[in-house]
Amino acid sequence: MSPIRKRGRVTTGIPGLDSMLGGGLVEGSAVLISGAPGVGKTTLGLQYLVSGAKQEEPGLLVTFEEFPATLVRDARSLGWDLRALEGEGKLRLLFTSPEVFLKSLQALDSPLSETIRSMAPRRAVLDSVAHFHRLTADPIELRHIYNTLVNGLKREGMTSLFLDEATRLLGAPYRTVGALPFLVDTILLMRYVELDSAMQRAIAILKMRGSAHAREIRRFSIGQHGIEIGEPFSGREGILSGSAHRVA
Amino acid sequence: MSPIRKRGRVTTGIPGLDSMLGGGLVEGSAVLISGAPGVGKTTLGLQYLVSGAKQEEPGLLVTFEEFPATLVRDARSLGWDLRALEGEGKLRLLFTSPEVFLKSLQALDSPLSETIRSMAPRRAVLDSVAHFHRLTADPIELRHIYNTLVNGLKREGMTSLFLDEATRLLGAPYRTVGALPFLVDTILLMRYVELDSAMQRAIAILKMRGSAHAREIRRFSIGQHGIEIGEPFSGREGILSGSAHRVA
Amino acid sequence: MSPIRKRGRVTTGIPGLDSMLGGGLVEGSAVLISGAPGVGKTTLGLQYLVSGAKQEEPGLLVTFEEFPATLVRDARSLGWDLRALEGEGKLRLLFTSPEVFLKSLQALDSPLSETIRSMAPRRAVLDSVAHFHRLTADPIELRHIYNTLVNGLKREGMTSLFLDEATRLLGAPYRTVGALPFLVDTILLMRYVELDSAMQRAIAILKMRGSAHAREIRRFSIGQHGIEIGEPFSGREGILSGSAHRVA
Amino acid sequence: MSPIRKRGRVTTGIPGLDSMLGGGLVEGSAVLISGAPGVGKTTLGLQYLVSGAKQEEPGLLVTFEEFPATLVRDARSLGWDLRALEGEGKLRLLFTSPEVFLKSLQALDSPLSETIRSMAPRRAVLDSVAHFHRLTADPIELRHIYNTLVNGLKREGMTSLFLDEATRLLGAPYRTVGALPFLVDTILLMRYVELDSAMQRAIAILKMRGSAHAREIRRFSIGQHGIEIGEPFSGREGILSGSAHRVA
Amino acid sequence: MSPIRKRGRVTTGIPGLDSMLGGGLVEGSAVLISGAPGVGKTTLGLQYLVSGAKQEEPGLLVTFEEFPATLVRDARSLGWDLRALEGEGKLRLLFTSPEVFLKSLQALDSPLSETIRSMAPRRAVLDSVAHFHRLTADPIELRHIYNTLVNGLKREGMTSLFLDEATRLLGAPYRTVGALPFLVDTILLMRYVELDSAMQRAIAILKMRGSAHAREIRRFSIGQHGIEIGEPFSGREGILSGSAHRVA
Amino acid sequence: MSPIRKRGRVTTGIPGLDSMLGGGLVEGSAVLISGAPGVGKTTLGLQYLVSGAKQEEPGLLVTFEEFPATLVRDARSLGWDLRALEGEGKLRLLFTSPEVFLKSLQALDSPLSETIRSMAPRRAVLDSVAHFHRLTADPIELRHIYNTLVNGLKREGMTSLFLDEATRLLGAPYRTVGALPFLVDTILLMRYVELDSAMQRAIAILKMRGSAHAREIRRFSIGQHGIEIGEPFSGREGILSGSAHRVA
Repeated sequence: MSPIRKRGRVTTGIPGLDSMLGGGLVEGSAVLISGAPGVGKTTLGLQYLVSGAKQEEPGLLVTFEEFPATLVRDARSLGWDLRALEGEGKLRLLFTSPEVFLKSLQALDSPLSETIRSMAPRRAVLDSVAHFHRLTADPIELRHIYNTLVNGLKREGMTSLFLDEATRLLGAPYRTVGALPFLVDTILLMRYVELDSAMQRAIAILKMRGSAHAREIRRFSIGQHGIEIGEPFSGREGILSGSAHRVA
Repeated sequence: MSPIRKRGRVTTGIPGLDSMLGGGLVEGSAVLISGAPGVGKTTLGLQYLVSGAKQEEPGLLVTFEEFPATLVRDARSLGWDLRALEGEGKLRLLFTSPEVFLKSLQALDSPLSETIRSMAPRRAVLDSVAHFHRLTADPIELRHIYNTLVNGLKREGMTSLFLDEATRLLGAPYRTVGALPFLVDTILLMRYVELDSAMQRAIAILKMRGSAHAREIRRFSIGQHGIEIGEPFSGREGILSGSAHRVA
Repeated sequence: MSPIRKRGRVTTGIPGLDSMLGGGLVEGSAVLISGAPGVGKTTLGLQYLVSGAKQEEPGLLVTFEEFPATLVRDARSLGWDLRALEGEGKLRLLFTSPEVFLKSLQALDSPLSETIRSMAPRRAVLDSVAHFHRLTADPIELRHIYNTLVNGLKREGMTSLFLDEATRLLGAPYRTVGALPFLVDTILLMRYVELDSAMQRAIAILKMRGSAHAREIRRFSIGQHGIEIGEPFSGREGILSGSAHRVA
Repeated sequence: MSPIRKRGRVTTGIPGLDSMLGGGLVEGSAVLISGAPGVGKTTLGLQYLVSGAKQEEPGLLVTFEEFPATLVRDARSLGWDLRALEGEGKLRLLFTSPEVFLKSLQALDSPLSETIRSMAPRRAVLDSVAHFHRLTADPIELRHIYNTLVNGLKREGMTSLFLDEATRLLGAPYRTVGALPFLVDTILLMRYVELDSAMQRAIAILKMRGSAHAREIRRFSIGQHGIEIGEPFSGREGILSGSAHRVA
Repeated sequence: MSPIRKRGRVTTGIPGLDSMLGGGLVEGSAVLISGAPGVGKTTLGLQYLVSGAKQEEPGLLVTFEEFPATLVRDARSLGWDLRALEGEGKLRLLFTSPEVFLKSLQALDSPLSETIRSMAPRRAVLDSVAHFHRLTADPIELRHIYNTLVNGLKREGMTSLFLDEATRLLGAPYRTVGALPFLVDTILLMRYVELDSAMQRAIAILKMRGSAHAREIRRFSIGQHGIEIGEPFSGREGILSGSAHRVA
Repeated sequence: MSPIRKRGRVTTGIPGLDSMLGGGLVEGSAVLISGAPGVGKTTLGLQYLVSGAKQEEPGLLVTFEEFPATLVRDARSLGWDLRALEGEGKLRLLFTSPEVFLKSLQALDSPLSETIRSMAPRRAVLDSVAHFHRLTADPIELRHIYNTLVNGLKREGMTSLFLDEATRLLGAPYRTVGALPFLVDTILLMRYVELDSAMQRAIAILKMRGSAHAREIRRFSIGQHGIEIGEPFSGREGILSGSAHRVA
């Protein structure tokens, strides 16, 4: 077992979010990011990796479905040149299957493992864990799979984001699917909320092991340079239900 | 993989909607349009194709159930002569089965593929994706089918609308069915809402990759010349729940 | 395919409803009427047929369960003599099974088909489509059945009402059962609503292809001469939820 | 088929309810009475039969589970001597199985049928139809069973009450179970409602073929002589949801 | 069948509850007590038995899971010495299986039956009926089991309490599980309710055959000597939903 | 069976919670702690064990999934040195499987049993019981398993905490899963609640056998030295629903 040492912080590349997190993610932690389609999970993940690349913390982006080309293009529209970062060895876009990735964490001498190790990534983003939900219908086996993922990435020293697809477009009070929310160290909720007859976005930290963190629910938007954290909501109730109302 | 280039905008034929979309749909994107029966999905799709035809952007309307004749008639009542546009090679009404259409995207030399290619369509409307939901009960296979659809149409350079049947007549907080909402670039919600003791229609953009977009929920109506976007709602909460209430 | 011609209007026999419909039903359209038991679906259907008989538009009432005698008696209490209309060849009460009726639409030379044709009905009421729901558990096959029904009646030139049994006694936000709501041209909702500590009835047009229509939700009652449309509701929210409340 | 004649009214023995029903139940009709345990369905049924017995309209009480002795005792506490009425031939307490009762309606020369006929009952109470729900899991077969019940009792000239067990202790917006609500002529709802921090009882007529009827929801109580209808509720919303609130 | 006689009242040992019940439980009746874990069902049952023991009405406490020792200890903390009452023949703690207990009610000469009879208990508490829910998945067989229980205890002349485990920690609008609510004479609801930001307890009588009873929902607490009935709630709505609110 | 004796109190290490519990947990009791991921269940459990260690009450922490190393590290961030306490024989971190632990409670001479006994723990924490939920799909067998757990730990004289994973991130009105809530002596709810547009934490005692306890719902936070109980909520309704609102 790894020796216990003072754990540093890992910046997310989003100053407002680092602030909510009490200074950034805890180094080596596993982070679940739950959100509906389009709310900004992937943008957050890219911003996290690009930020790492700038600080000599190489990162790994694992996708199971979306061709890296799409990500490369979307990132470009936000001013991020993923291919250039790849060329500099600061980023690795990995397009694989859940099974292969899982095995690479179990068999440390697999080609994929060695490729990953040669780069010594400090950050990882998995987009998305939904593909692991689908590997088995047996909750015990699934729990085992998640354990392998979470512990495998920790063992390699990575601070990793697990992007999770919320099945409801609006509203937060979702049921935990499988054991992942219990296994990770931190949970971020990204939510759409109907407010003032418009679609807004809300972010909140639900769980964060080993750190104080902000409790307020904040607005966020996706601007020209990625995610920007806005003001906390105020005078509203039921934000995480997806349909907020003013305090009477 | 296709080279990355500056992506233009594709007008929807509905000025208010183009404006909400920050100038139109992103060229080459896949757009999910979710709505209850009769709310106006098909009208939006026709308006999109007719608008394209006027700009020398040929379009393809794929239906799996409704005879083109019905569409032709409905379009005529809105002043659109689909048969004439077909005659001019600016529109193609394709009545086929989900299986055949899917195969045409996989086997590039199939008769259907060649027919489609000879016309070089820039726009596509699939009415509706519900027929693909029903091809398999296996979520992994379904995800694969959706991938084939989305990527196949992109590969051919089309900006495509996927019409999706919402199973509730009223109210929005629907669960995502399958992976399609995660695969598309843009999601539009079209909803009935009971407001002031009347049935109103609401439209909102939930997700739009690679573009800023309006966040407000707007009224819309179907007038003599198709869909017209109205004012944003104001002073209401819970519009997307299907039963709005005034702000207390 | 039938030639496209200017489509007329078909009166429902209920002036207030014709007015809501922008002048009546669209000729040749298929209309879904959704309502809880007792709310007045059959009364509306009878009123429609009696009204047609007076205008030399013969009608067909297809029941699958209720003996025509019951309908004849109920109609008499509203002043309508169905047997007399049958004698004059202006109405035909058909008591059959869903399977036989379906086949008559498929095999144009079946005895039933010929009987129907000899009368040349312009209007049809099916009471109720619930019997078709039960023919198969396969949604694709059911969709096919509904297509056969809707298109078969259109082919014969009838403007037809499909009475559909809502499974909740109160409240509207029902899920669409099968594909029928997507296949029909028009959807009318008839609903019970608790209002002012009493059971009221509400009617609204949800969908109407090829026509403008009223958006308001109106009261209706069943009086001595059938359905009478009342005032629109006002100052209420949540009518279609079954339990309206005053605007705060 | 029976000749059509002017249909009289059958008093329920509860003046307030007769008044709500526009003069009583329609002669020969089938009435569904839906209520939670203890709300008063059986009391209403007994009161109906005792009232008939006093007017020389013999009645049949069919139970499938509760021994007649329990009913006899409960009735005595309300001042009704069922055994005496049985002795006078004005009432028959029949304790049987759903299967046997159903067959007696199908085979007109069965011993039970003949016994019933010799008494020539004008009224019937079935306590409860839940026992028929359980005869089959096939909705088509169940619909057939209900048809046999409803039509069999009508054929014998009885005005019959079908007591139906609501599965929720509080609240009304129940889903119709099977086709019975569509087959009967009249539906009465008996409901518990929490009001002013107390358990109240509410009654409403939802459906009544061939008659005008009261629309208001009224209080009722079970007093020394059975059910007594009270005032309509007023200034409340959501009574049938089981948890009423004052109008704001 | 037992002769009908004037039925007395059986005190529950809780004066406020006897008062709500119009003088106590009806002698020989079957009473269902529904409540969430910890709300006080067993305490009510013990109090009922201890009260009986003091009035020379021996009682039987049947448990299927909890060792009598636990009950003995819990009772002691409330000042009740169950072992002493057992020694005096005024109480019998019976730890058995549902199957054995059921058979003892069917085979009157079984060892258990004879043991029970020799003591001639007038009161019984079954803790809990959940164990009978689990004997079979067949609702008809379960209904038969409940009939055997209810009628068997009545036949032996006992006034019996059936403790039922509500599956929701908060809130009342529970669905009836099986037929038991219809078979018993009386239903008491014991509920947790969040009120004024605290966990309160509420009790209400839903059903009571053959007796007038209080309709109000009252507070109760568990004090040093068991359950004490408090004031009725007032100025609240939705108490039985588990989350009351002030009347606006 | 163990002789009945005056039962003492066991401090939780959290003064505010001891106060809510009327002086601490009842000695030898089984306590269910229900909470969403990250709300603080494990922190409470560690605090309980560390507090015991300081008072010469050795404790046992049983985990089934999370490596003790993680706990050790998390505890260190709160100032607790678990390894040191293990070295002093005041704490035992046991990483095992549910099956093995269960058997150790059944077979008193198993190696694990003997190891446990040699330490004579007075306190136990099981993190979490979810692993027992998954041992069987048969509710009767599961009830038996829970009985074995609860009674086995009682028999060994331990006051034990059962950490239970609530499947909803927000909101309390959860359904009891299996029989455990009925078998334990005490139930604590730990909940997230959205309040004033922020994520707050709430704690309440739902059930506590053999003791008076606080009824109010209190805030709590996780500070530098573990859980700290804050003020009761006031002027709010619906706290345990997860989305509180101000009293109107």
